[in-house]
Amino acid sequence: MAKVDFWYEFASTYSYPAAMRIETLAVERGATVAWRPFLLGPLFAEQGWRDSPFNIYPVKGRYMWRDMERVCDGLGLPLRRPDPFPQNGLLAARVALALEGESRAAFSRAVYRAEFAEGRPIDDRATLAAALSAIGLDPEAALARAQEGAVKDRLRAECAIARGLGLPGAPCLVAADGEIFWGNDRLEQGLDWAIHASAGVAGRP
Amino acid sequence: MAKVDFWYEFASTYSYPAAMRIETLAVERGATVAWRPFLLGPLFAEQGWRDSPFNIYPVKGRYMWRDMERVCDGLGLPLRRPDPFPQNGLLAARVALALEGESRAAFSRAVYRAEFAEGRPIDDRATLAAALSAIGLDPEAALARAQEGAVKDRLRAECAIARGLGLPGAPCLVAADGEIFWGNDRLEQGLDWAIHASAGVAGRP
Repeated sequence: MAKVDFWYEFASTYSYPAAMRIETLAVERGATVAWRPFLLGPLFAEQGWRDSPFNIYPVKGRYMWRDMERVCDGLGLPLRRPDPFPQNGLLAARVALALEGESRAAFSRAVYRAEFAEGRPIDDRATLAAALSAIGLDPEAALARAQEGAVKDRLRAECAIARGLGLPGAPCLVAADGEIFWGNDRLEQGLDWAIHASAGVAGRP
Repeated sequence: MAKVDFWYEFASTYSYPAAMRIETLAVERGATVAWRPFLLGPLFAEQGWRDSPFNIYPVKGRYMWRDMERVCDGLGLPLRRPDPFPQNGLLAARVALALEGESRAAFSRAVYRAEFAEGRPIDDRATLAAALSAIGLDPEAALARAQEGAVKDRLRAECAIARGLGLPGAPCLVAADGEIFWGNDRLEQGLDWAIHASAGVAGRP
């Protein structure tokens, strides 16, 4: 079965619709998704950005917010603009990495809902505890594990891998052959590529 | 009949596949396209960029070139990386503006072919003269008209309109209601929006 890596950042706007629809798209195609949270901050800092490029470049920011309205409207997803934007996704990423498999995916979707549908601060332990409770996990245990050195190291390692892959932003799909597909509107293409790559057929269907 | 403005820049990579397929997509939908060449340079300069962001940010540049290979491969379009990149599209934009209607569209496609399929310099009068000849126009007359003050003023005015619209890059489709769709992969969505907007139906189909 084809496997695809789904790289996402909790502060990233387009990662929200991507996270909400990736599993459905994968199931339709018989592919499996590995959820890989990472941080854009260190990658952006290397490019000289100390803030979201959507804040640094207001023309791009205005376009993105209007486009996000259209994208979410088309998917029937509520959208509230986080304040402040971008949110700090460090703790959420650590909690996600402290979980595995379907728990990580369900927690991640719950965080995106809190952030972009309900406008709640995702650097707040209460927000993350509520997200954990909502999916039937013990908030205190997960939040404690998220602060362990091993989890912090793992997130740093994941960010180094993302850097090594050359991810230009989030979300990205990465197929087994290393092909990168950037953006919510490239999920279908990335999944289709991954399926053909795993079948030993190079290139696009 | 729905009309959509197609804003493009001759130096822009994704404007190449967009220019090659926009008319087919529009005809399929019964829409008409107004070809509006402009320059990204003045807009980028306002954001502090004195070069293509794909050169300033190599991670984005590497991703874009690989993505362009996939896009062009999927469309059956040849792709050669212009050297230097980006090309200077000023004279080509003036020639395009000096033409009207189908001549402008055909000339623009011929310039994109010369630039991205054949690797020819588009700031070279010989390249533009060949593109004009290929579509049955008198090269000397068109090149002379392109240097007239009225055409230069018109290009400046078009760039000012692009700035006022808040175009975040190229290519962009702009519907009659002002909605902007950025990118080669948003042409279908932009056309569909324009058709619904012109029918008095707000929003996405």
